[in-house]
Amino acid sequence: MGSKSKPILGITMGDPAGVGPEIVAKAFAKRLVLDLCKPVVIGNADAMRESLKLVPKKLDVREIGEISEAKFAYGCIDVLNINNIDMKRLILGRPQAMCGKASFEYVRRAVELALNHKINAMTTAPISKEALHLAGYNYPGHTEILAELTGSEEYAMMFFAEGLRVILVTIHVSLTEACRLIKRDRILTTIRLGDRTLRKLGLDAPRIAVAGLNPHASEGGLFGDEESEEIGPAIDEAKKLGFNISGPYPSDTVFFRANNGEFDLVVAMYHDQGCIPIKLVGFDTGVNVTVGLPIVRTSPDHGTAYGRAGLKLGTANPQSMIEAIKLASRLAEKI
Amino acid sequence: MGSKSKPILGITMGDPAGVGPEIVAKAFAKRLVLDLCKPVVIGNADAMRESLKLVPKKLDVREIGEISEAKFAYGCIDVLNINNIDMKRLILGRPQAMCGKASFEYVRRAVELALNHKINAMTTAPISKEALHLAGYNYPGHTEILAELTGSEEYAMMFFAEGLRVILVTIHVSLTEACRLIKRDRILTTIRLGDRTLRKLGLDAPRIAVAGLNPHASEGGLFGDEESEEIGPAIDEAKKLGFNISGPYPSDTVFFRANNGEFDLVVAMYHDQGCIPIKLVGFDTGVNVTVGLPIVRTSPDHGTAYGRAGLKLGTANPQSMIEAIKLASRLAEKI
Repeated sequence: MGSKSKPILGITMGDPAGVGPEIVAKAFAKRLVLDLCKPVVIGNADAMRESLKLVPKKLDVREIGEISEAKFAYGCIDVLNINNIDMKRLILGRPQAMCGKASFEYVRRAVELALNHKINAMTTAPISKEALHLAGYNYPGHTEILAELTGSEEYAMMFFAEGLRVILVTIHVSLTEACRLIKRDRILTTIRLGDRTLRKLGLDAPRIAVAGLNPHASEGGLFGDEESEEIGPAIDEAKKLGFNISGPYPSDTVFFRANNGEFDLVVAMYHDQGCIPIKLVGFDTGVNVTVGLPIVRTSPDHGTAYGRAGLKLGTANPQSMIEAIKLASRLAEKI
Repeated sequence: MGSKSKPILGITMGDPAGVGPEIVAKAFAKRLVLDLCKPVVIGNADAMRESLKLVPKKLDVREIGEISEAKFAYGCIDVLNINNIDMKRLILGRPQAMCGKASFEYVRRAVELALNHKINAMTTAPISKEALHLAGYNYPGHTEILAELTGSEEYAMMFFAEGLRVILVTIHVSLTEACRLIKRDRILTTIRLGDRTLRKLGLDAPRIAVAGLNPHASEGGLFGDEESEEIGPAIDEAKKLGFNISGPYPSDTVFFRANNGEFDLVVAMYHDQGCIPIKLVGFDTGVNVTVGLPIVRTSPDHGTAYGRAGLKLGTANPQSMIEAIKLASRLAEKI
């Protein structure tokens, strides 16, 4: 693959008090990352310099003010510097307003750059909801921030982990509310978004399995009617539209079957239905993708791990971040 | 272990049109099973004889009319014969009223024997809800049949698979109804039943983790109040009572942590929350235990697999059945 065909990937540094800077630096230590994309960090140069101490390889940080100044050279991390961290006040492993504000600004800047085609995709290191709240930002997570900043209304969370791919019909709402939100149109939209993403990755007619909401997918109506009233009709409609789709399947076996290669994607009805199997199968390798945005965005499927950043400095596993970079590069190339 | 200390284990044959007879016969082909217990099949001798064709080892069937007649000799399966199958009318791989009725009768007989201390424990091969319905029995599964036949009101489903043990607060109800049933007392009862079962197995002060109901265990009340109103208070009360307990934990990570050895038991709020991880971790080895009954009962964590019994005769994996026999033997010995 020639250098010209590689996408420019903006990597937001995440919360400076979490494992973000460490896993970003560790990812840059891998030649593979530079083979896949032209990566640039959107974050704070001082915090990135500090994180280099945690990487066994010799790496440098190079501050830039515009993406066009980046050199994308192995061994030297281009950092689009946003001067919003006072390193003397930074306490690792603890939520702080300064860090919540800083991490929000990295994301906002990356979104602007992506919308203006200065970068082809973005991968985000973890932020802390608690730190965001301290800074006055009230969001359940990255997904909702990105939807708002890009003005997107039809979006979904999708996860990739080892052999398993999952997309969620509902996200950060109570389980009672999630049950209420299980409606035909919402399910159809999620199916569309998931199918489109897999086609971008080169899968023709991806095999989509839809999970039921209720135990045993309601066992023919014995435990709940969402399967007959909403999920079944959505599947029938999707079939008519030409999707390669089946279900609703009992959710306690469909993830095992998908992970064994029977399906390319599982449409999960609620957060934990999809996230329990993803974390079990790929705790250290899972990737989260926000689909339905006008930009490409992936992230490792874990949080700031404050405990690790505070007391176990240097022990964070960068594999999930590396997988997120790989996937963003693949999705960006197809745009 | 001397022969006298071995428990007598009644193994119900399950639906004759499913994989039950095959996996039972395959389990008897293992010397280990005879080392652990004195097993006797409660089922139909003709169907068991037929299933011997599917086992590579040379085995015989010996009909008995009372448990006291059993010899428990390796190579010869003692079958407490219940004459309720017309082999000429039996169609493998299909739900039939004859089989639903027959499989119900095996379970009823085993329960009587267990209540009368003729057997020390029972392990049940799979039955079909559809076949039960055709025969006029309307139960969601074994668990509810056993609760009714033994007059038990406080019982729960518990699962063992590899490193993971899970107990359910709610079972066969719609997810909306499960949310409504998440109450302090019900959670406390489930904690008690799970703790007692693990103590029987020799674990002192088992480490119990309680899962949240909502995504991220509601993230401090952002998505639902069951954690603060019901689950948290149940955990506080359990702590006061001396249980080694913690939570509520986000359910997308607690099963991974338990499977990695951090907890001995996860208390799950609803069917799929507990069954998704169990099936992923131990699809071929999972065991289901009904706790809270006056008798010991285990079963393999899979169904009749009609498709396999019909078209793929002889390919059923008996491992889950063997694990169920092991666990029943261990639980019975401690009574």
